[in-house]
Amino acid sequence: MHGQSDLQSSLEMRRKPVQGFKGVLVPALTPFKGDLSLDEEAMLAFCRSLLEQGADGLAIFGTTSEANSLSLAERTAMVERLIEGGIPAGRLMPGTGACNIPEAVQMTRHAIASGAGGVLVLPPFYYKNVSDDGVFAYYAEVIERVGDGALRLYLYHFPALSGVSLSPALVSRLASAYGPVIAGLKDSSGSWESAALYIKEFPGLAIFPSSERFLLQGLAAGGAGCISATANFQVRNIRRLIDAPEGEARRELDQAVARVRGVFEKLPLVPALKAAMAIRFKREAWRVVRPPLVELSEAQRRDLASALDAVGA
Amino acid sequence: MHGQSDLQSSLEMRRKPVQGFKGVLVPALTPFKGDLSLDEEAMLAFCRSLLEQGADGLAIFGTTSEANSLSLAERTAMVERLIEGGIPAGRLMPGTGACNIPEAVQMTRHAIASGAGGVLVLPPFYYKNVSDDGVFAYYAEVIERVGDGALRLYLYHFPALSGVSLSPALVSRLASAYGPVIAGLKDSSGSWESAALYIKEFPGLAIFPSSERFLLQGLAAGGAGCISATANFQVRNIRRLIDAPEGEARRELDQAVARVRGVFEKLPLVPALKAAMAIRFKREAWRVVRPPLVELSEAQRRDLASALDAVGA
Repeated sequence: MHGQSDLQSSLEMRRKPVQGFKGVLVPALTPFKGDLSLDEEAMLAFCRSLLEQGADGLAIFGTTSEANSLSLAERTAMVERLIEGGIPAGRLMPGTGACNIPEAVQMTRHAIASGAGGVLVLPPFYYKNVSDDGVFAYYAEVIERVGDGALRLYLYHFPALSGVSLSPALVSRLASAYGPVIAGLKDSSGSWESAALYIKEFPGLAIFPSSERFLLQGLAAGGAGCISATANFQVRNIRRLIDAPEGEARRELDQAVARVRGVFEKLPLVPALKAAMAIRFKREAWRVVRPPLVELSEAQRRDLASALDAVGA
Repeated sequence: MHGQSDLQSSLEMRRKPVQGFKGVLVPALTPFKGDLSLDEEAMLAFCRSLLEQGADGLAIFGTTSEANSLSLAERTAMVERLIEGGIPAGRLMPGTGACNIPEAVQMTRHAIASGAGGVLVLPPFYYKNVSDDGVFAYYAEVIERVGDGALRLYLYHFPALSGVSLSPALVSRLASAYGPVIAGLKDSSGSWESAALYIKEFPGLAIFPSSERFLLQGLAAGGAGCISATANFQVRNIRRLIDAPEGEARRELDQAVARVRGVFEKLPLVPALKAAMAIRFKREAWRVVRPPLVELSEAQRRDLASALDAVGA
């Protein structure tokens, strides 16, 4: 447990200027109340605790955050509440993608104006089999309409959910056209080969695999760290893993972290992470997800609790 | 060509109370200006012309309308402009689905308050492999939050793009729970077998296949008509087809309509329809699509023009 003064100094310490993101970023879960409304105060407390535990940044409004289940108004208001509540804006990488350009521009402008360290931008995800030209045009419109050299945009490659792949050829075109504005890429393909390819092809970009399973390999290959759903549950150990010297202790920690990840990978990921938070914080409302996601069943929750016990988490 | 007074009487005639939709509904294309902004006046003129040509309704903000490439603000403002401009509200079936519940509720309430005859509601389309329970909960939340018995909701089954299938079991649950509020379903699966199944299982719902290819079979089986992308181009002939007595002339018209449909099916559908409108209305801006869609190439446009000539369209 940390007191308020520990929290303050911890946040103060992290308020140094951000030179691009690296390390472990948490795609923070979004707590709701029983009526499905966004629980801004629980979100603020949770984000504080993630930074206290060693998160380098907060990729709020990612897939794990149920971002696309939130309205634009909820997303912009939440950014403001977090910053008012003392979360350093430079530590925030809000997801600001949308299927439509006007709203992606609006959310991206708002994030930059708020001082966010960067934004994570999904491609438009309704139409399928779209061309690289079309996806390039989408990002180009967003970037040019935002029209701010301070923009640091992280591409969000998640073909299984978005249905749109950000090919290396497309990333290369964007990086050539927009220089430092294209700051990095989150690779949620779940494949090490995919992450390794982006790392190799784009040494100037911060490449974040989406799993702590690839953290050490990724860092060794020149990757930036990870933005992992399960960091919501074990960011403290991921922090220790990043900071640990090579050796047997690090290998053991790596395996322990992978075992915890494995528990969640067997279940619907977002509902399982929220169920784990409900157990950890002794607060049932943490289980609430917005439709179309559904909470874990009681049986699933029991299995989750046993499995977490079994791996010592 | 119709004069203003013809238009007035034509619209007046259609201003009778709508008892649920049937016949041919056009998922109206959305015209943009060269800067990608929504061309409200061109949209109004286009919607008027579709009704003049015999459309029974306008399913604005469907997939063909690039609805998900429009902001919420654009969609609600456009509904208002159409009604101010004299389009009978009861003839409108706006798409009001969204990935998130608050915005789906906001757009649905707005449509009903505007007097729309119904709304067409996509399931939330970001998460994949979601359960029927989750999709049921989504529609249930939208319906209950809207909280208006005047709501007439048409389910939008388009698994290829939404990634979410509305199974007969799910439709049945919704119809049982919400009675007349669940008014119908648009089946954009592209499969006659699928449409035939919904028609058979749900005699109380207005089932609209998404292609005029299935119009006559569908009507004969008890379907409601069609909501077809290519109705943007040939609504006049689809109207004639619906109204024609059985016989050789009707069979020939049916084949002619299918040939025109076939021309568009060989190309990216929305860009091809917009290119055809640019030719018909001699107005290049009609070609403009929003990213991630891309306009047809010059070569594709030449092929389209030849193919339309070849089928006499």
